[in-house]
Amino acid sequence: MVRHGEQLKLGLLFHPTGNHVASWLHPDSQIDAGTNFNHYVEMARLAESGKFHLMFVADAIATRDGNLDALQRWPQYMTFFDPLTLLAGIGAATRHIGVVGTATTSYNEPYHVARRFASLDHMTGGRAGWNVVTSFNQSEAYNFGREKHYEHAERYARAEEFVDIVKGLWDSWDDDALLRDRKSGRYFDPSKLHFLNYKSSNFAVRGPLHIPRMPQGYPVIAQASTSEVGTEIAAKNAEMLFTPLINLQQAQKLYQDVKSLVVKYGRSPDDIKIMPGLNAIVGRTEEEAKEKHDFLQSLIHPDVGRELLSNALAGIDLSPYKDDESLPENVVEDFIRRDSRRYTPLFLNRPTIRQMYLKFAGARGQRTVVGTAQQIADDIEHWFTNSAVDGFLFQPAIMPGGLEDFVNMVVPELQRRGLFHTEYEGKTLRENLGLRRPESRYAKKA
Amino acid sequence: MVRHGEQLKLGLLFHPTGNHVASWLHPDSQIDAGTNFNHYVEMARLAESGKFHLMFVADAIATRDGNLDALQRWPQYMTFFDPLTLLAGIGAATRHIGVVGTATTSYNEPYHVARRFASLDHMTGGRAGWNVVTSFNQSEAYNFGREKHYEHAERYARAEEFVDIVKGLWDSWDDDALLRDRKSGRYFDPSKLHFLNYKSSNFAVRGPLHIPRMPQGYPVIAQASTSEVGTEIAAKNAEMLFTPLINLQQAQKLYQDVKSLVVKYGRSPDDIKIMPGLNAIVGRTEEEAKEKHDFLQSLIHPDVGRELLSNALAGIDLSPYKDDESLPENVVEDFIRRDSRRYTPLFLNRPTIRQMYLKFAGARGQRTVVGTAQQIADDIEHWFTNSAVDGFLFQPAIMPGGLEDFVNMVVPELQRRGLFHTEYEGKTLRENLGLRRPESRYAKKA
Repeated sequence: MVRHGEQLKLGLLFHPTGNHVASWLHPDSQIDAGTNFNHYVEMARLAESGKFHLMFVADAIATRDGNLDALQRWPQYMTFFDPLTLLAGIGAATRHIGVVGTATTSYNEPYHVARRFASLDHMTGGRAGWNVVTSFNQSEAYNFGREKHYEHAERYARAEEFVDIVKGLWDSWDDDALLRDRKSGRYFDPSKLHFLNYKSSNFAVRGPLHIPRMPQGYPVIAQASTSEVGTEIAAKNAEMLFTPLINLQQAQKLYQDVKSLVVKYGRSPDDIKIMPGLNAIVGRTEEEAKEKHDFLQSLIHPDVGRELLSNALAGIDLSPYKDDESLPENVVEDFIRRDSRRYTPLFLNRPTIRQMYLKFAGARGQRTVVGTAQQIADDIEHWFTNSAVDGFLFQPAIMPGGLEDFVNMVVPELQRRGLFHTEYEGKTLRENLGLRRPESRYAKKA
Repeated sequence: MVRHGEQLKLGLLFHPTGNHVASWLHPDSQIDAGTNFNHYVEMARLAESGKFHLMFVADAIATRDGNLDALQRWPQYMTFFDPLTLLAGIGAATRHIGVVGTATTSYNEPYHVARRFASLDHMTGGRAGWNVVTSFNQSEAYNFGREKHYEHAERYARAEEFVDIVKGLWDSWDDDALLRDRKSGRYFDPSKLHFLNYKSSNFAVRGPLHIPRMPQGYPVIAQASTSEVGTEIAAKNAEMLFTPLINLQQAQKLYQDVKSLVVKYGRSPDDIKIMPGLNAIVGRTEEEAKEKHDFLQSLIHPDVGRELLSNALAGIDLSPYKDDESLPENVVEDFIRRDSRRYTPLFLNRPTIRQMYLKFAGARGQRTVVGTAQQIADDIEHWFTNSAVDGFLFQPAIMPGGLEDFVNMVVPELQRRGLFHTEYEGKTLRENLGLRRPESRYAKKA
């Protein structure tokens, strides 16, 4: 069943070696994935052959902090490339797939960010996207001259201003400002060049940006929804929303809430695509899929499992309990009383510590669908046709294998059902996602 | 004649549309060069086919400021890409040529710069270079929250610290820190990971950088020599020096001064390659070359010529004089008394205003060699064998034509003379330039 003639959007969320916490230990994973450019290119081309709309790269601007003995056993994001630099390279090696990169508004200058995404959008012929985030890790603050990261309110206030300035810079040149006319000897029309002259207590940026307006007007703006303020900003600006999902009902509620909020800000519900992460492990049979998943789970080291579990259950001291012991009931009840309902399912059926960390660690508490291509397509179709999502950011548990399986088995099944496109519809990421090209703020006034 | 078995180094300095002030008006220039990625790639591949060691990209972080009526007639660097983003794309589309990009120490964070060049070096298999500059344009300050640019002394003090921090971050991981050992389950050796813990009144950067040590250790460090302080810093850090050249004697003196200064800082004279800009217009005959040059000169608009000339002769009001008038002798004498000897040759033979601006504007006062491949090779050989340079950064007057001519005519002539290599010697830019791979600061202590 296809929703109003619309089709599913798919992105590849590239986590080095894969999203599963133990993926690097799997003999078939690309062990140096985070800093192996050729591997990134191969994965991007593979996703492009599967008609993925985009490739999405997360970011942090520090190594992960913590116990180095545990980190060396879970090294994801300890070493990886600057997203914009990486995506410029990937863009040059691909033709259709969108390239969406993360850049923080906390420790950057709006002028640099505006310029780099504008460069990327021109260079890729309109395939760039910016995932706007704020930084809240202490370790990131330390790398940028601060003792503490910005508090929540200040962080979001800065973010809102930052995006506004960046958009203003992107509008520096009208779409028709560059004449390039040898006859008259005029390269541009000075009346179509705009100085931003932005000033506040946080930022002062005169402009203009020294890059003409982009193929897409602006790159596609992506955002993760992690708080109410975040959702509010997303409703104003974001065109792609990345959310953690627990179950269908919660997803449907969020979907409806965000789409209404978008309308409140004078936009159309179609102006934002809600695309949560999707963990899926595919097999030719259900049994094979389960075996793949079980094998990855068997690679989880107890130190890593316990480290992740104790982070998730902050406040519970796990050290008194052995792996095959369960938490005392009063400890669990105390925790549930204090904390959100988010981790409640972890406690079902009085699991042992090992059972809990195995359940949690693999995909850090997120849902993982394990099955045949048909079963996974059923699941995707169910969420899509029941208005819970506009698409997914697929996070392979392990790469390259997990992506190969998805492209070879699940994508054709989705295409057979008419749920997924068989060819890129347009040239730009916006065109492929069905998003409007934004007008310049100066054009609007005319 | 080859100097001690050494050969000439050649870089391509890519100025959009070409270095000649009127290149964009030439019917054969790539009129949208500054923001046409495919053109950049074609030029890089062409330079690579001519065995150029590297491609060099200048930068500023603002549009050029000034009279917009004049700027629209001389639009160079009004619209162009972020160098690092651009070079990542070019790196992905080439295999051998070095990619050297400019990044300022005035309006950047050391952590970002360290990370981006480290990414570029890994992505290109060791072909990255960083041209270190400081910013002194008012228009750049305005884009980064400042009313004024940093004063000279502060600018250079920041630069020196900045480079030091960036190098420290590049040493975060020892060359053998990454174990990637599935058997022991250890991805890295924590004892080989280093926190920088840098703190001063200008910067506080804890580190470590989340990128392993680069193929080249550090990217090649380039610098322009524009002041005594600059030359002093270059002697400490730079491995490639870009200088404006007036005549052979001055070049030889600078060459000797810099090489001695380098030794004073405990380095070998071979640790720095002095590579000034080279303007050359090649023809199959001397006459053809002259015609090419004359045609470009004929395209210089009087407004642009006078704008450039009045900048060069700051303090002389040109407005009272018509194009075919000469400056009164007392005005010239006053100027020469006040100002450096730099522009004295401009006044030879009592030129008219037009003659002066034509002489100056084309290559902004720099020398242009016009002739056959033999004549240009003679000139290059003369400078090289007389210890004035280690090589040149060739700046085509117009692109693509000027680069095509040089690759097709001058490069083979230099190769026939044994002055220039016929194949890339190594894999990295350092190997090709004959530069050592720097050791980590931590390795030195061991």
